Amino acid sequence: MKYQRPTIPRGTRDFGPVEMAKRNFIFSTIKTVFQKFGYQPLETPGMESLSVLMGKYGHEGDQLLFKILNSGDFLKAMSAKDLKDGYRQILRKVSEKGLRYDLTVPFARYVAMNHHKLVFPFKRYQIQPVWRADRPQKGRYREFYQCDADVVGSRSMINEAEIIWMIYEIFSNLGIKSYTIKINHRKILEALSALAGGEGKENTFYIAIDKLEKAGKEKVIRELTDAGFDHEKIDKVFPLLEMAGDTREKIIRLKKLFHSLEAGISGLQEIEETFSHIQDSEINIPNLRFDLSLARGLSYYTGSIFEVTMDDGSIGSLSGGGRYDNLTSLYGVPDIPGVGFSLGVDRIYDVMEKRDLFPDQTSTFTIVLVTTLDAEAVPYSLPLLAKLRSQGISAEIYPDVVKIKKQLNYADRKGIPYVILIGSQEMETGKLTLKSMRTGKQEALDIGAIIEKIKNQMND
Amino acid sequence: MKYQRPTIPRGTRDFGPVEMAKRNFIFSTIKTVFQKFGYQPLETPGMESLSVLMGKYGHEGDQLLFKILNSGDFLKAMSAKDLKDGYRQILRKVSEKGLRYDLTVPFARYVAMNHHKLVFPFKRYQIQPVWRADRPQKGRYREFYQCDADVVGSRSMINEAEIIWMIYEIFSNLGIKSYTIKINHRKILEALSALAGGEGKENTFYIAIDKLEKAGKEKVIRELTDAGFDHEKIDKVFPLLEMAGDTREKIIRLKKLFHSLEAGISGLQEIEETFSHIQDSEINIPNLRFDLSLARGLSYYTGSIFEVTMDDGSIGSLSGGGRYDNLTSLYGVPDIPGVGFSLGVDRIYDVMEKRDLFPDQTSTFTIVLVTTLDAEAVPYSLPLLAKLRSQGISAEIYPDVVKIKKQLNYADRKGIPYVILIGSQEMETGKLTLKSMRTGKQEALDIGAIIEKIKNQMND
Repeated sequence: MKYQRPTIPRGTRDFGPVEMAKRNFIFSTIKTVFQKFGYQPLETPGMESLSVLMGKYGHEGDQLLFKILNSGDFLKAMSAKDLKDGYRQILRKVSEKGLRYDLTVPFARYVAMNHHKLVFPFKRYQIQPVWRADRPQKGRYREFYQCDADVVGSRSMINEAEIIWMIYEIFSNLGIKSYTIKINHRKILEALSALAGGEGKENTFYIAIDKLEKAGKEKVIRELTDAGFDHEKIDKVFPLLEMAGDTREKIIRLKKLFHSLEAGISGLQEIEETFSHIQDSEINIPNLRFDLSLARGLSYYTGSIFEVTMDDGSIGSLSGGGRYDNLTSLYGVPDIPGVGFSLGVDRIYDVMEKRDLFPDQTSTFTIVLVTTLDAEAVPYSLPLLAKLRSQGISAEIYPDVVKIKKQLNYADRKGIPYVILIGSQEMETGKLTLKSMRTGKQEALDIGAIIEKIKNQMND
Repeated sequence: MKYQRPTIPRGTRDFGPVEMAKRNFIFSTIKTVFQKFGYQPLETPGMESLSVLMGKYGHEGDQLLFKILNSGDFLKAMSAKDLKDGYRQILRKVSEKGLRYDLTVPFARYVAMNHHKLVFPFKRYQIQPVWRADRPQKGRYREFYQCDADVVGSRSMINEAEIIWMIYEIFSNLGIKSYTIKINHRKILEALSALAGGEGKENTFYIAIDKLEKAGKEKVIRELTDAGFDHEKIDKVFPLLEMAGDTREKIIRLKKLFHSLEAGISGLQEIEETFSHIQDSEINIPNLRFDLSLARGLSYYTGSIFEVTMDDGSIGSLSGGGRYDNLTSLYGVPDIPGVGFSLGVDRIYDVMEKRDLFPDQTSTFTIVLVTTLDAEAVPYSLPLLAKLRSQGISAEIYPDVVKIKKQLNYADRKGIPYVILIGSQEMETGKLTLKSMRTGKQEALDIGAIIEKIKNQMND
């Protein structure tokens, strides 16, 4: 028979049962917190019109969009002459749709299309895969899940406080420690940019500062002076980015410094409000830090920005987000401010795996395997299986009549904690042999006693 | 500002909070049953190599695959001369990947790639979207979820019995009534095909019989005679397809008829075994029917086949499946028999919506909205919100200081059952006003009493 050795596209992954169980543990922990804070689920299609996607992620982003060929004869609108125009021109003729690149743009598109019927403030979460035609490498995939929560239609800093609160609660529930939630504000950076002699050039400033850790101070300063910032002023501003002290001290110092810079003052005020809402909530978030060097790469943020990193610096950011005021105006609907954040599931997974944080039983679904010593035991076993399941106990019967050793091996490899053995003796007496796969211990019990025992174990 | 009115690709859908809640109710009901039967989750990428997808769904299927343009300069391998070869030839040069068309082929690809490390029998379920470039119409989408469970590596009819059992349990748990689970067997149809004078042409027979309901008897008979079947023999076989009587009677009658047709006898034996396992299980499945006219369209089935339809005929099949013996051999791995089924989530949704079967509270996530009469009430409210959430109660605060009417309207439109009102009097006395949005009733209670009351309601 002719066949092709199967492959999986580069940068994509299958998730088998063990990975899925761990991933679902992360997803369900996140969803539970989102819902506890009043965020509701939304799903958008994997495909979006290219007109919706293009131009929203910068030139590089446009290149990284996966484009879908128009169906049928995709060449019908094309002539040999067109070929000379190059692939970028031809793209418009052969492709109208692309794969979702993130969850923010589809969300903005959804809000713009449905704003007349949504209840504002609209709080939604969205957990779906996105696709990017990036060069695959360790930890970077072409298909991966994003996990976003956003609220639109409110300017209150309670939203910021609640996002920090949610991040804290999610990380606590996942068991992750030694991380920092950093917060900063674009308007504060705007004021710092002005102080560095770059008034009106704050976007250049954000992008440069965002590279500070990776590229180093020297390169960033060169980039800024090349863009017309003042070298001497930069030298005064840069130490501020690493300012020590607690939040209150930082705010007091910056207020003096900014005195007539309106943007900076209003940014500080919003940071103050955010911290004061958290304090009022009487929840203690020791991991939160007002970090003036946090800038974030995306251009659409206009207010608060956040990021979560591990303190050992072992991995990039686990979460990030910020406030934006104009996202839906891209689609003709102005004046819907919003704030949101995204969790990086793959990185969270790696951190949890490395630190052995997944609960022991995450990947076990089946609690009992019913095994049969011969074909006669099968009809006797089936109603027992029904009894176990009717009590909510996940149970399987090994479907084929094979040696008991093979059946036990199946239970062992699948991580099933209990096996019931059924042979002629068991059928005669009604006392079934219950074997614990963990301890190897065997007991003779009737089905009622077995159900009771297992239910007690499950509730532990 | 220049902008584009946003659109969503034809045949795709957004799922807002209300639809999501209902869809999640269906998904979680299905997952719970799958897991109770020992099936484990699997996810495969949305993109697959075209070499994996092409040729698996017939010529029409190949046309309906969404193909992804190679990234970068997709024209670089192409010359003006190539244009003359037409789009089908060029396709190979500009596209290497396509979107998942169903969950069965990716599953077969996964098993073929991982069979050396899987534990057999391998029971997996998979709930993911698939994409088809079909002409969109009512109830037919270009992107929709499939919901599959398959077991591979076992020839036992216990698997068939358990699939029927799962279907029955899922439909019971969803509250769907008045449906029929039909079962038939490809080898029985093969014997009937031989009796109709079409020995060796059983595939033609399956495809023709599958159209019986839509195209009518006359057309199907013409199709068969055109293919070389015997008209007189067809006239004897067709009444058998509508045979009355219970399963036992049908089997006895067919056994006599088939006497020397080996395929037919072995098909009947497997049907008998399936029914006897179900009977042994002492579960009562009144909706199950051995239906000789069931054929199913797909070519890879080799044994039992199933389908679920509503008795009022209002909608196509809600579920379907069957046994296949050679699916992974497409990818060079022979001898892994399997059986599985798929649930049509969109149709199940429509049936449940039409019959009002979704539980009342499906779409309510938030239980309490904390409202504030003025800005002073905010700091007082935040720790109360923390207390509610720490008790597992989904709670929100209206983030902006606006008129109470607007806040109550938000609760009402979002379907939040309780509102806590906080103003100067409440702050003075510690007795908060709890308002039931359903009855309009108001009570003055402290936060402890409110938590107790709500937790009691939640457990009801």
